[in-house]
Amino acid sequence: LKNGDNQRFRSDFFKLHTNNQIDFFNMLNEPNRQLFYHLVRPEEFAPIFSKLEASEQKLIIEELEEKYALKTIEFLPTDEVVDFLSELPKEMSDYYLECMDVRESERIIVHLKYKQGTAGAIMTTEYVTVNPDETVGEVFRRLKIQGKDAETIYYVYVVEGDNRLVGVISLRELVVNDTDITMQSVMKDQIISVRTYTQQEVVIKIIKDYDLLALPVVTLENQLLGIITIDDIIDAYNEETDEDFGKMAAISGAIDLNVSAHSVIKIRLRPLIFLFVLGLIPAVIILSMPKFLEQIALTAIFIPLITGMAGNTGTQSLAVILRGLSKGKINKESFVKLLKRELLTAASVAVICGAVSAIIGYALAEKNILMGMIVGSSTAISLFICTMAGLFIPYAAYKMKMNLAIISGPFIAAISDIIAVIIYIAFICILL
Amino acid sequence: LKNGDNQRFRSDFFKLHTNNQIDFFNMLNEPNRQLFYHLVRPEEFAPIFSKLEASEQKLIIEELEEKYALKTIEFLPTDEVVDFLSELPKEMSDYYLECMDVRESERIIVHLKYKQGTAGAIMTTEYVTVNPDETVGEVFRRLKIQGKDAETIYYVYVVEGDNRLVGVISLRELVVNDTDITMQSVMKDQIISVRTYTQQEVVIKIIKDYDLLALPVVTLENQLLGIITIDDIIDAYNEETDEDFGKMAAISGAIDLNVSAHSVIKIRLRPLIFLFVLGLIPAVIILSMPKFLEQIALTAIFIPLITGMAGNTGTQSLAVILRGLSKGKINKESFVKLLKRELLTAASVAVICGAVSAIIGYALAEKNILMGMIVGSSTAISLFICTMAGLFIPYAAYKMKMNLAIISGPFIAAISDIIAVIIYIAFICILL
Repeated sequence: LKNGDNQRFRSDFFKLHTNNQIDFFNMLNEPNRQLFYHLVRPEEFAPIFSKLEASEQKLIIEELEEKYALKTIEFLPTDEVVDFLSELPKEMSDYYLECMDVRESERIIVHLKYKQGTAGAIMTTEYVTVNPDETVGEVFRRLKIQGKDAETIYYVYVVEGDNRLVGVISLRELVVNDTDITMQSVMKDQIISVRTYTQQEVVIKIIKDYDLLALPVVTLENQLLGIITIDDIIDAYNEETDEDFGKMAAISGAIDLNVSAHSVIKIRLRPLIFLFVLGLIPAVIILSMPKFLEQIALTAIFIPLITGMAGNTGTQSLAVILRGLSKGKINKESFVKLLKRELLTAASVAVICGAVSAIIGYALAEKNILMGMIVGSSTAISLFICTMAGLFIPYAAYKMKMNLAIISGPFIAAISDIIAVIIYIAFICILL
Repeated sequence: LKNGDNQRFRSDFFKLHTNNQIDFFNMLNEPNRQLFYHLVRPEEFAPIFSKLEASEQKLIIEELEEKYALKTIEFLPTDEVVDFLSELPKEMSDYYLECMDVRESERIIVHLKYKQGTAGAIMTTEYVTVNPDETVGEVFRRLKIQGKDAETIYYVYVVEGDNRLVGVISLRELVVNDTDITMQSVMKDQIISVRTYTQQEVVIKIIKDYDLLALPVVTLENQLLGIITIDDIIDAYNEETDEDFGKMAAISGAIDLNVSAHSVIKIRLRPLIFLFVLGLIPAVIILSMPKFLEQIALTAIFIPLITGMAGNTGTQSLAVILRGLSKGKINKESFVKLLKRELLTAASVAVICGAVSAIIGYALAEKNILMGMIVGSSTAISLFICTMAGLFIPYAAYKMKMNLAIISGPFIAAISDIIAVIIYIAFICILL
């Protein structure tokens, strides 16, 4: 397709929807991508670039000629430049900021200061404002010119003097009104707005509850700072759901498939260690009840600890893959990538938790070294196997087009219990 | 406020945003609502009615005069009538269908046939279509008239002859183009569309990936049947997330706070019984390994079973309240309502699972009646307490504005383990 006629490639390519352009772009190898950059101008590449995942953007920007890269960034909407730069190492983002137009870079620096997850961080500054005394006809003429750069023209914001927001009117209302009516008389003056520090989930709730397509962000004095559009919100909503899912499986911040193994290990270990301490409590209680300890033997007190830990790691990897499947992000390629990360994570977590439980086992079992080794090895091996079970069981069910409803956290926890008990018994029967 | 001037109430009330109107309406008691219906016309009540929860709609429709009720339904958009009727008992929805305009009711019957969760079930038929040879100016004049009834005017669909979809143009593109250009030349002819049977999650993914505000639903012959707008999708997306959350905690379909206790009990018991069988496996394995059974006593084999069950019920109630909190739906009032439902659910589940495990305990413990009683009672009591713990711990953390991140499924499972072990020990020490 690409070897031949350049002009023809361009005309064919730009007939495609941006999404298909991206699919096409993703299929290219490095030399073909370099050819692609020659054929496509930075302003045409910007919309494609802006839709790539953050991790891909980082790779692509490095292989671009610097001039081309800067031009591409220039053509991104402000909020996406902010997103992109906030993912880069500090020295790189500083460099790009220095190369930019001063006014633009100042605006971006202001944005970068807003905390992730607040309205300030997701708002855009490309919108259309009008004066209260302009007529519908004048506004339409203005939209014809400004409309190309604005992120949305479905709302027009009416501002006075000091950029103070006094009204809002939807494009829909503009269309149904006569051309000689002024903004003053058609605008809605009861404006729903948020502040830069408003939490993302509150923004989502407002946009959803009020069926808005965009929401203005204002200062205490009602000065318009930016707007949040519904497509930004859908992205944010996705993040929120990831968060909720992460919370449910004790791995907040590590649901996304692109998070590195290093971060994933850290994020997952923290709750596991905490849960390990909780899991010790039943053992300690049993130990402190001599009458009950008579009924069961020392070896039994470790059962809840080992099964509990195995269940937790299984649930963690389950949450990652279930969420990925439901977002439609799991295919063969991404599964292999995920599998590599999970193997590394499972191994690290198993070694660390195994070592900790060996020491605890040794201490609780009246300083019996053999018992410490048994508890440690059983924990390590069952954690590793159960992390893999949490990954493979749902993936296999999905591949076999089975109903995923039974593959729940408790289901994986129950399977993990079984695996952990078998491993523990095996060690005891062999070594004790 | 309401006793005085009716005219003044109306003018004040209609200045409010629909959402605040709903808040106001929800605060009214029955006699005040009757007064309200006298002051507000059905066509004005319809937008408020359409935003109520399905369970509230059912109650409200019964207290309306029949004529008023029918008028209200008439003024709802087709997709919302469908939603509403599909929630009613068959004889009631049939009755309303008979009272309606024949053409409208035929359209609704077609809709009701589409399976829940498919594009057909969420699409709307109120949209604007134009001919390929109309000019931008003509389309604007047409929007001025038709725009009021359409669910969205942000896309205009270009159809030929037999309602065959040949193009689509956004209002944004209409605005930036000159008034004498024909649709033929500005419309996009590469149309992204779905079929009536397309799954909701696929629709969501397309709308999200392509940043659309609406998506057409067409037949195999490309005839336009309806459109799905982004606000319908946000509702659907919410349902999908509920589903995902439900799957994670093994309670698909019972996340919503409005589901009745009866259904919740059924939905939750099924996985619990299944998980109970899985939970038995470690016990059976231990029993079948005489060498290991020597190491631990008979009483120990029930520990994984009881702690596992307790953890599962805790996770189930946790998922319901975490999801409710994250949707911003939990306040004091709704918590009390939820609490009542959960008390009933917990009690029923505890009695049933307790009875089952008493029998199993009796059978596994060499037909020891006392052991059966201990296992049964421990299971029942710990299931009940752990369901409540899954509800109260996150609610208390939320009330005390604590970080909810540590309140995860595994955390509640670990707490449940502790509770269950204590209860089991207590029974054994007292009775054995």
